Amino acid sequence: MNQKLFSAGLALLLGAGHGVTAFAQAKPEVLVKQRQAALTLQGKYFFGQLRPMAQGKTPYDANVVARNAVFLDALTQMPWDGFAPSTRDVKSGALPAVYTDTAKFKENQDRLRNEITRLVAVSKSGDEDAVKAQILAVNKVCLGCHETFREKQ
Amino acid sequence: MNQKLFSAGLALLLGAGHGVTAFAQAKPEVLVKQRQAALTLQGKYFFGQLRPMAQGKTPYDANVVARNAVFLDALTQMPWDGFAPSTRDVKSGALPAVYTDTAKFKENQDRLRNEITRLVAVSKSGDEDAVKAQILAVNKVCLGCHETFREKQ
Repeated sequence: MNQKLFSAGLALLLGAGHGVTAFAQAKPEVLVKQRQAALTLQGKYFFGQLRPMAQGKTPYDANVVARNAVFLDALTQMPWDGFAPSTRDVKSGALPAVYTDTAKFKENQDRLRNEITRLVAVSKSGDEDAVKAQILAVNKVCLGCHETFREKQ
Repeated sequence: MNQKLFSAGLALLLGAGHGVTAFAQAKPEVLVKQRQAALTLQGKYFFGQLRPMAQGKTPYDANVVARNAVFLDALTQMPWDGFAPSTRDVKSGALPAVYTDTAKFKENQDRLRNEITRLVAVSKSGDEDAVKAQILAVNKVCLGCHETFREKQ
């Protein structure tokens, strides 16, 4: 009970500091569904389309790279508020470390955002080799984070 | 059988004309999951955050509007290739009209894209009344499309 009260208080404090309009708090199951949606779409546009190009498995298409980089710039901002403490007990592929090692989890999010920002920039350069190298840099961040924070699939 | 052959041939023809790198064709179930993910996130940022502001149910926040408009500009480009003919028999909320009245379905997608483009523009104007009106214009397109193409929820 004390733990619950503490969590509720903490959530209020965090919410107050969030700097974003106070929306009705989404239910934990909804938060999980939404964060999974964002990660599913990162998978569609990154693992499904960009990575195979960088690996030489599909033809390189600069237009698709530029479009997907912009998509990923939006998508990589979306999942993280869905890992709220309230979702800890909802069944998902998230490992407990998501909720215990929040500093490292946040560090991984920031690293991904940095690499995606670079991908957006380099996708405008027309330098195919640089783009492919940057796609593989993003891939490394994805896999590193999954290693620590996601169940093996 | 003839119907199946015809559908396969049509899919090839459509695929050839798609103008995008030939990715490995995703399985129908994956396409449905991905399109639902994009629509789930449209729901998060539009029905969950923007519409309540326009309806006066939550405080207006120009920063959230600008951010969500950019998110929605990406998200509203994502679901449509997931309604491929191969997905016709996968269980989902899509009504048969999605696959039979493709011209009207496409018209609705274009209308949504137009209204979102306007939302992005007006969200930069600082004109709260104009933004709210534009949010409600987007809402009308969403509901109109759901009326014809989505099962009642």
